[in-house]
Amino acid sequence: MKPMTDSVTTMADLKARVLAFARERDWEQFHAPKNLSMALAAEAGELMEHFLWATPEQSQAVARDAAKRGKIEDELADVVIYSLEFANITGMDVAAAIERKMVENAKKYPVEKSRGRSEKYTDLK
Amino acid sequence: MKPMTDSVTTMADLKARVLAFARERDWEQFHAPKNLSMALAAEAGELMEHFLWATPEQSQAVARDAAKRGKIEDELADVVIYSLEFANITGMDVAAAIERKMVENAKKYPVEKSRGRSEKYTDLK
Amino acid sequence: MKPMTDSVTTMADLKARVLAFARERDWEQFHAPKNLSMALAAEAGELMEHFLWATPEQSQAVARDAAKRGKIEDELADVVIYSLEFANITGMDVAAAIERKMVENAKKYPVEKSRGRSEKYTDLK
Amino acid sequence: MKPMTDSVTTMADLKARVLAFARERDWEQFHAPKNLSMALAAEAGELMEHFLWATPEQSQAVARDAAKRGKIEDELADVVIYSLEFANITGMDVAAAIERKMVENAKKYPVEKSRGRSEKYTDLK
Repeated sequence: MKPMTDSVTTMADLKARVLAFARERDWEQFHAPKNLSMALAAEAGELMEHFLWATPEQSQAVARDAAKRGKIEDELADVVIYSLEFANITGMDVAAAIERKMVENAKKYPVEKSRGRSEKYTDLK
Repeated sequence: MKPMTDSVTTMADLKARVLAFARERDWEQFHAPKNLSMALAAEAGELMEHFLWATPEQSQAVARDAAKRGKIEDELADVVIYSLEFANITGMDVAAAIERKMVENAKKYPVEKSRGRSEKYTDLK
Repeated sequence: MKPMTDSVTTMADLKARVLAFARERDWEQFHAPKNLSMALAAEAGELMEHFLWATPEQSQAVARDAAKRGKIEDELADVVIYSLEFANITGMDVAAAIERKMVENAKKYPVEKSRGRSEKYTDLK
Repeated sequence: MKPMTDSVTTMADLKARVLAFARERDWEQFHAPKNLSMALAAEAGELMEHFLWATPEQSQAVARDAAKRGKIEDELADVVIYSLEFANITGMDVAAAIERKMVENAKKYPVEKSRGRSEKYTDLK
């Protein structure tokens, strides 16, 4: 089997990988959208924990720290795994949803108005 | 441009899409790992909000409710968008991280021990 | 010193307890509202983790399980500690904010309309 | 009724206020620990949203901004309301749990070792 990397792995490949893991363990019974959304949020919390007291600038170094990077990759993986399983269980197409959302975002944040600015679109003038 | 769907879109395609959006707006300056982890967790919270008072069983219907499904897809998209941008900014390969994490998970949760059970691996006998 | 319990401890007592702990360690420098809101959310994630795969009904038993109750109390304590420190650092009066919010909530959720119903106020007819 | 403020309001007063609100609406049926932990985490996410792109330093100004302060107080109130209701439903004494946790924290973070340092206790030397 060739290694899974971002450049050759489709969302469908990853979704199938995650679903097979759950099916093999008969875990779909636990994977209600409610439960998966909780698990996802809990993992997002664990990802954040690495950066609580660092400044945004320092957080770059934290993410590259040899002793922490592996753990941070694990937390990110967990977040995406639960996102993919949420999509599996609810029958959502993630790439299509992202594409649609980015088209929407582009309307809310036109380049000329939002360049270099972090305000919410409702506060952009 | 052909439509982005899970079956034809690689993680690298999605990462590039998200990065281009940020670059065009000169937003990389705001995208410290700390900030992205917060944004990701906040979006995970919004995804959860759709399921707060539903039972796990009812949450299946919520996710398929015509009036709510679009919003739920949007929240899921936001979570994955921030995950991808986190990977962009920190130079992580998400598919590789998922593959590695699932190999680990398979050791923690051997099929014969974990089938049909939701206990944490530390509680499995 | 008499023991701190809910019936005799004011919010101001608890806020002072938490602030003294931080001051003694010269930690106020790390306690920016941004950082405290992250820490709070991360602890809320840890509290949730105890209930991921339980049904709402089962979660009652989880919270009363002798082996888990102490840990769950610890997570709840952490959430409230960070809430109090957030109030300390920003100069907010928590009890007054709660009272004001509950008056607002009572308008959004009049008893006759919301009795026994879990819909969001925007969906109540 | 005298106004509720931190200096005169006990945790028991606030817990009773929150419980009465839920009882009047027959909402205890929805307030399983699982559901309350989700609601709490979702509100924590909303509190965080105010600070996503601000630096820690800037977040002080955000919390004092006249246009935002009321909303931030509302989010903090929501977090504490759900914490109190969680304590109500599970029969926990919040002040006692906080006192116990702070004694524990004082052991993990002795003043001489932790002064001015933000490392996790497991990383303190």
